[in-house]
Amino acid sequence: MTFRLRHLLGIEPLTPADIRTILDLADQYVDLSRGASKHSDVLAGLTQINMFFEASTRTQASFEIAGKRLGADVMNMAMQASSIKKGETLIDTALTLNAMHPDLLVVRHPQSGAVDLLAQKVNCAVLNAGDGRHEHPTQALLDALTIRRAKGRLHRLTIAICGDIAHSRVARSNILLLGKMENRVRLIGPPTLIPAKAAEFGVEVFDDMRAGLEGADVVMMLRLQKERMDGGFIPSEREYYHRFGLDAEKLAHAKDDAIVMHPGPMNRGVEIDGTLADDINRSVIQEQVEMGVAVRMAAMDLLARNLRAERAAGGGVYV
Amino acid sequence: MTFRLRHLLGIEPLTPADIRTILDLADQYVDLSRGASKHSDVLAGLTQINMFFEASTRTQASFEIAGKRLGADVMNMAMQASSIKKGETLIDTALTLNAMHPDLLVVRHPQSGAVDLLAQKVNCAVLNAGDGRHEHPTQALLDALTIRRAKGRLHRLTIAICGDIAHSRVARSNILLLGKMENRVRLIGPPTLIPAKAAEFGVEVFDDMRAGLEGADVVMMLRLQKERMDGGFIPSEREYYHRFGLDAEKLAHAKDDAIVMHPGPMNRGVEIDGTLADDINRSVIQEQVEMGVAVRMAAMDLLARNLRAERAAGGGVYV
Amino acid sequence: MTFRLRHLLGIEPLTPADIRTILDLADQYVDLSRGASKHSDVLAGLTQINMFFEASTRTQASFEIAGKRLGADVMNMAMQASSIKKGETLIDTALTLNAMHPDLLVVRHPQSGAVDLLAQKVNCAVLNAGDGRHEHPTQALLDALTIRRAKGRLHRLTIAICGDIAHSRVARSNILLLGKMENRVRLIGPPTLIPAKAAEFGVEVFDDMRAGLEGADVVMMLRLQKERMDGGFIPSEREYYHRFGLDAEKLAHAKDDAIVMHPGPMNRGVEIDGTLADDINRSVIQEQVEMGVAVRMAAMDLLARNLRAERAAGGGVYV
Repeated sequence: MTFRLRHLLGIEPLTPADIRTILDLADQYVDLSRGASKHSDVLAGLTQINMFFEASTRTQASFEIAGKRLGADVMNMAMQASSIKKGETLIDTALTLNAMHPDLLVVRHPQSGAVDLLAQKVNCAVLNAGDGRHEHPTQALLDALTIRRAKGRLHRLTIAICGDIAHSRVARSNILLLGKMENRVRLIGPPTLIPAKAAEFGVEVFDDMRAGLEGADVVMMLRLQKERMDGGFIPSEREYYHRFGLDAEKLAHAKDDAIVMHPGPMNRGVEIDGTLADDINRSVIQEQVEMGVAVRMAAMDLLARNLRAERAAGGGVYV
Repeated sequence: MTFRLRHLLGIEPLTPADIRTILDLADQYVDLSRGASKHSDVLAGLTQINMFFEASTRTQASFEIAGKRLGADVMNMAMQASSIKKGETLIDTALTLNAMHPDLLVVRHPQSGAVDLLAQKVNCAVLNAGDGRHEHPTQALLDALTIRRAKGRLHRLTIAICGDIAHSRVARSNILLLGKMENRVRLIGPPTLIPAKAAEFGVEVFDDMRAGLEGADVVMMLRLQKERMDGGFIPSEREYYHRFGLDAEKLAHAKDDAIVMHPGPMNRGVEIDGTLADDINRSVIQEQVEMGVAVRMAAMDLLARNLRAERAAGGGVYV
Repeated sequence: MTFRLRHLLGIEPLTPADIRTILDLADQYVDLSRGASKHSDVLAGLTQINMFFEASTRTQASFEIAGKRLGADVMNMAMQASSIKKGETLIDTALTLNAMHPDLLVVRHPQSGAVDLLAQKVNCAVLNAGDGRHEHPTQALLDALTIRRAKGRLHRLTIAICGDIAHSRVARSNILLLGKMENRVRLIGPPTLIPAKAAEFGVEVFDDMRAGLEGADVVMMLRLQKERMDGGFIPSEREYYHRFGLDAEKLAHAKDDAIVMHPGPMNRGVEIDGTLADDINRSVIQEQVEMGVAVRMAAMDLLARNLRAERAAGGGVYV
């Protein structure tokens, strides 16, 4: 077991070995969640706090189920936007919570970098559940686990990430992870929704779905983040679907056994055809949700092990 | 133990034997909740999710306490009305939750039939916590348990259900249950608040409280569902109380030992006189709340047994 | 162990021995929360309900963590202001919850006296988590524990309580507690924010920070309760800070080892200088939060012992 991190703030600081360690353990937790008893005591005696400064029913539910299944004492704190206008207040909130001695702090925040900042102020393990346009590491890890289980490997695959790349922390974390594991990543979307610096990430960029999907093993659709598009170009849903929505015809350009992914919640008929989304021969969208709980269980378990080892050693330094 | 259902979607599919099985087990759970330790491990290792698409402090609290007392990992999900406009989205939500492997899914939804639809899409046990004007089975079961404990039996009783029958899923589930157990059911209310098809249910209809209460063993008041009266006749509260509110004078027409019930929350001075509601010699309103927790514990225990048996058998079919 | 109360409704009914019993046990719970396993089964088998009729992220979180760490089944109920307009409805809500057999009921309510009223209607232990301008006993107890740990004693200290005394239940509970333990209490603030009857409490009143802080062992700042100032004088924040905000210059008038306290959440630059608040040589603001969890664990543990003893004895009478 080589996992050596104190926090899970992003994919960026992870090594390929770290990623494999998380995914291997997550495979075991898939079995636990499918079994007759879904409960373990791995996190018994520890306190997990979920601090969501941005509403997210499904991600918060996934972390909450993960923690409860592992026996942690889990508490949700709905943070109102009004109470977090100043960075100063975020730190006060963090210090207050820290004084209650949580062991695992799961944080979602609308500002990029806020979770990193918070992690510097507390002495527990922090998990980034999405910060602004920056990172959403457990989403990339659950996508990776889904791909690895469907394809039997997580390297040398051609993976097309399609849609609103520019506003997507999901895309950013996935690009980082898939690159580290030596896959060929393509970004497909209208030029206004592709970040200018995309090429620096070692990816190929397409503005045509058919060309971009050619020979792909994995087709990863993104959610249109209308709430994050401030002032920029907003395509009509109908036009967007026509050019960039995934349907059977466009998918035919990918490999015959290509899988279809979406982080949810889906806008059916905008990003993806509803029938295709439900086609269990191609779509692994429900598996992604299932893998989400398992990946979060694995990440919290590994961070708790490091935390306990650090405390037993009377301090210690982690990256 | 003959309980053979996979879901608890309504009273309609239950046999008298099913009803007795639930109530007999609930009697045991009344004792547990009154004891020195209120906690058991009957649902340990299982995950319960409460999905309330309609706010309901007391019903949700009752299910939450029931699950926690039985050792389940319990999660509440407050679903916003905005995210459930389309039936399609309800199904996506259901599939997402299902992928997290809950065992017990408790659902309240403003649309009649929505919970049945959802139950077809998931492979866990679903409990209907109220859907539109359709059914509210645990309310009818808790009313039945309250009556059985107060009267010593649940058959050959004369039971008057009074008030806003037309908008009430509570009334509908109660009429079904009390009919199955061979009671004489009377509906009392203004004609505009009695459904046109009432006679089909084998009940007697009255628009006068004194006549309808004559010789009744049980007087069951309903809450005025103003929020569900769209465009129809809305009586003034004062006039309504005068004609249909229960007070000592009207109650005198019922049997001397008739009990008074209300599903709560009460509009004192509208549906019922406050003093009468608090009269522990006649009112069993607090007992109804207590029985609510016990009935929900029993229902979840029975459904979990069937679920475990089904899984141990590698599948299996339930009604 | 002499603790003989059934409820914790305020500091007023507590004896010095009661206070010492709570603080001594809380010291042990500080150790538990700092240890490798933060979980105990002291409250296992019991049900704790948190009823907050007024939002309070940090106090509710503190009670929730306290209960979960002690193994209780904990449920939060967010009570909407709309459902509690009438005192009658508060009682109905209390009776409903009581029928679900909670053991510990934690209540915050905007009206002074509401929690006492509620406690008369239920047969479980009630903890006041703040009622109007009346009392906030666990805040005073956590402040007392913080002082006792920092100063080595809780008597014969000079303690200055500064700011908006008139609107503060925190101040009121602290004045009562610190008086019972034979400390010298000073109130400092603008005359409009000092209650007219302050002198009756055996305190000294100042309207000048420098004079009031002279020789103080403890400087306790209060939050400006703008939301509770109905129609009265509201100072500008800038002017308020100039005259009554705590900074290094004003603090120099207190003893060299005086500690600085604030119940949070702080308005930095209004009640207190941000740098001073973060100075770990003077500020014990984070310790207050930590002591809050420990004091609530101790109070709930002691009340649960009395409740169990009462039930084992088949009733019994408590003050």
